[in-house]
Amino acid sequence: MDMKRYEQLAEDITGMIAARVLRPGDRVPSVRQLHQSRGLSASTVFQAYYLLEARGLIVSKPRSGYYVKARLERLLPEPEISRPGSGSTQVDVSELVFEVLDTLKTPDIVPLGSAFPSPLLFPLKKLSLCLSGSMRHLDPQHTVADLPPGNASLRRQIALRYLIDGVHVPTDEIVVTNGALEALNLCLQAVTRPGDAVLLESPTFYAALQALERLGLQAIEVPTHPRDGMDLDALAGILELHRPKACWLMTNFQNPLGSTMRADKKDALIAMLAQHQVPLIEDDVYGELYLGPQRPVPSKSFDRQGLVMHCSSFSKCLAPGYRVGWVAAGRYARNVERLKLMTTLSAAVPSQMALAEYLAQGGYDRHLRQLRQALSVQQNLMMQAVGKHFPPGTRFTQPEGGYFLWVVLPPGIDALTLHRVALHQGISIAPGPIFSAKREFNNCIRLNYGHPWGQRFEQAIETLGQIARSLAQR
Amino acid sequence: MDMKRYEQLAEDITGMIAARVLRPGDRVPSVRQLHQSRGLSASTVFQAYYLLEARGLIVSKPRSGYYVKARLERLLPEPEISRPGSGSTQVDVSELVFEVLDTLKTPDIVPLGSAFPSPLLFPLKKLSLCLSGSMRHLDPQHTVADLPPGNASLRRQIALRYLIDGVHVPTDEIVVTNGALEALNLCLQAVTRPGDAVLLESPTFYAALQALERLGLQAIEVPTHPRDGMDLDALAGILELHRPKACWLMTNFQNPLGSTMRADKKDALIAMLAQHQVPLIEDDVYGELYLGPQRPVPSKSFDRQGLVMHCSSFSKCLAPGYRVGWVAAGRYARNVERLKLMTTLSAAVPSQMALAEYLAQGGYDRHLRQLRQALSVQQNLMMQAVGKHFPPGTRFTQPEGGYFLWVVLPPGIDALTLHRVALHQGISIAPGPIFSAKREFNNCIRLNYGHPWGQRFEQAIETLGQIARSLAQR
Repeated sequence: MDMKRYEQLAEDITGMIAARVLRPGDRVPSVRQLHQSRGLSASTVFQAYYLLEARGLIVSKPRSGYYVKARLERLLPEPEISRPGSGSTQVDVSELVFEVLDTLKTPDIVPLGSAFPSPLLFPLKKLSLCLSGSMRHLDPQHTVADLPPGNASLRRQIALRYLIDGVHVPTDEIVVTNGALEALNLCLQAVTRPGDAVLLESPTFYAALQALERLGLQAIEVPTHPRDGMDLDALAGILELHRPKACWLMTNFQNPLGSTMRADKKDALIAMLAQHQVPLIEDDVYGELYLGPQRPVPSKSFDRQGLVMHCSSFSKCLAPGYRVGWVAAGRYARNVERLKLMTTLSAAVPSQMALAEYLAQGGYDRHLRQLRQALSVQQNLMMQAVGKHFPPGTRFTQPEGGYFLWVVLPPGIDALTLHRVALHQGISIAPGPIFSAKREFNNCIRLNYGHPWGQRFEQAIETLGQIARSLAQR
Repeated sequence: MDMKRYEQLAEDITGMIAARVLRPGDRVPSVRQLHQSRGLSASTVFQAYYLLEARGLIVSKPRSGYYVKARLERLLPEPEISRPGSGSTQVDVSELVFEVLDTLKTPDIVPLGSAFPSPLLFPLKKLSLCLSGSMRHLDPQHTVADLPPGNASLRRQIALRYLIDGVHVPTDEIVVTNGALEALNLCLQAVTRPGDAVLLESPTFYAALQALERLGLQAIEVPTHPRDGMDLDALAGILELHRPKACWLMTNFQNPLGSTMRADKKDALIAMLAQHQVPLIEDDVYGELYLGPQRPVPSKSFDRQGLVMHCSSFSKCLAPGYRVGWVAAGRYARNVERLKLMTTLSAAVPSQMALAEYLAQGGYDRHLRQLRQALSVQQNLMMQAVGKHFPPGTRFTQPEGGYFLWVVLPPGIDALTLHRVALHQGISIAPGPIFSAKREFNNCIRLNYGHPWGQRFEQAIETLGQIARSLAQR
């Protein structure tokens, strides 16, 4: 697709805003500056700025020029930390989760409740070329050689990315899996037995709850702040009191909160867990989708004892449907590899080879930059729409990455009712209770901004706001 | 690769032997007949017959011509039925299994202990074209739409194959999985809880034992005949005495025995299990690899209550490494689908699409015919080699399909010792004890004839025979 000059300029400015080169309140380059530096006509520049204004990224001030719009953080207040209550809970959420997931299969539904970003944001063509190319030169013996721990070249590429991010992970710790979900499930099996207790964030990713339910494990939910994650003071108390066999959490752009632990907090977390010899299952599938200047380090980088099993995948940032994830499983690597061999044997060879080829060719980082830019724009647009259409008293935190907005509605609005009414109007959302073993967060919803914005999404948010208002009045 | 005329003739005759058009003792066409019917020269015919003689398929009788060789069944006696003893067993075989599996990763090892046939027997080129073709036209929405129960077109193709085999399976019972191994594991999870007892054949596929071990289940091993499978009288007694929660077995070309239940026996099996409402996990991954005139029916075809979960895959007969299997799970289909969603989400989309495309294009049956023919020849050659080189008192049954030969050595020869000594000489075998919760079958080994025969395999069998003889003399 050829871009017009004004579209190209708008993209460039968007990229600078996404990368925080231009920050909220900054003045964007003037017509005269752009004419001199890039030879653009005044009308081209104005067309670009009208587009950016329509997208909600910049705002004009009379007789002064265009400025990067203030972020909505200041407009809507931040939700407080969760208070899940103490004690462990037997988990029983699967029915509710499946009810929500089933809705996403309906075609034409507005997928605000989806766990995936839009497939339109991925380099599917290039991936499919890598797939064809690598399979054409397939050595037949490869069909067996890619058994766990997985394709050697792919594992080297993954180790290399760790190295670039400043994390030292030996290649032989890396086990390739069918997406991160399998990695997480295998890790949990590797370190627990039925009846054991596992620490989780509150709220937490529903698949963690389902895994606990399936394996007969008890959940201990730890208070978690929507900005910077699990409360370490609360964690310290729980570690003394209970004897958890594992801790499962997302340190970066947590699902559903969007929270991210600062590096020093991660360091402290690892020290505390090491003191009690509690293994950490670190789900870091959104780590590459940061909107700030650099990737937040995984807590794995502070691990000196091999207690951290760092799980990630290509499903959320490169190749949905290829089902390739991995775990750098520290001292548990051989256990995880064996569990993998026993349950699903190996990840698909074509998928593994295609990704190894793609990563070797280069271009992954360019794709990621474009993806982050798109998510940044979409986040902004969704926040504005929610701010505009949702009832007074609504709160959310602006996540620094990922593609989920955790919205706290005014008390009294029931998220499950909202979910059911919205569904009748062709809109899916993820209601708060699916993220809690205790089925809390009754007035919270998770919205997905991983889809290119447009009228359809703007209208869906407006409709959601109307339903929420009508529920508030009951 | 162009075949010479004599090679083509040899292949044709081999095919007729494999398909039992020419049976043991039959005279093969004479030089004069072939000259008249196909215009072949005498020297072409003789060259073909020398080749077939060298392969051990035909034998010349002076002044009479060439005849299809008598099958070795008559030369080596058949082993008797297993006697696993009564009661349930906690399973602990994994270490031993992994020790054996690890050996197969060593390059250059003669893979007689492998569970896979040679990748050279598969249409990898055509599959890779289907892969490229289907991915080129990939609708981005597909990357999500192939979530469980799986790719719609692939599931239709699978249902169609059931129909052709005379088994009525509604498409919506079919859940696509990461190979049959995942299907089997999910089925077991769907119908059991830790501590439950599960019926198995004796000996049984080691992955079944590993699955029981992983899920904390008890194994009840049922006496099994190497020719026609599980002993139904023994089963009846066990069903009365214990309360098993599931039965896991392979009705066709059982691994490791090669046994196949007759249709009437399958019918009786299903009636007995239905009477006690015990679900059957039917592992039928070798069903397409029959050497007789037609595919043996799965016992699923006798199921009227939805109690049978019929598991199979493309890994052993078409596309190793693609990791696509399935289960037609009867009344448990929704449970299995949900377990799949919770543990590995979905099978790889490229693999699913490639196989859907391959099956739609046709040619699968032609490929299967060639594969069966190759396996038939290889079986014959291996049986002859074992008959020639192994010590007196060795027994085996000639399986009617699959690619495993279960060899019972004279008493006193320890299979684990044989395995370790052979490994030092670069030969892998699968020793009997890995197929038993009680670690029985100490004097049995499983040999894989799924690889194109040659000097290397002939020599390996000779070496194995020598080791076995030396162990017998100790």
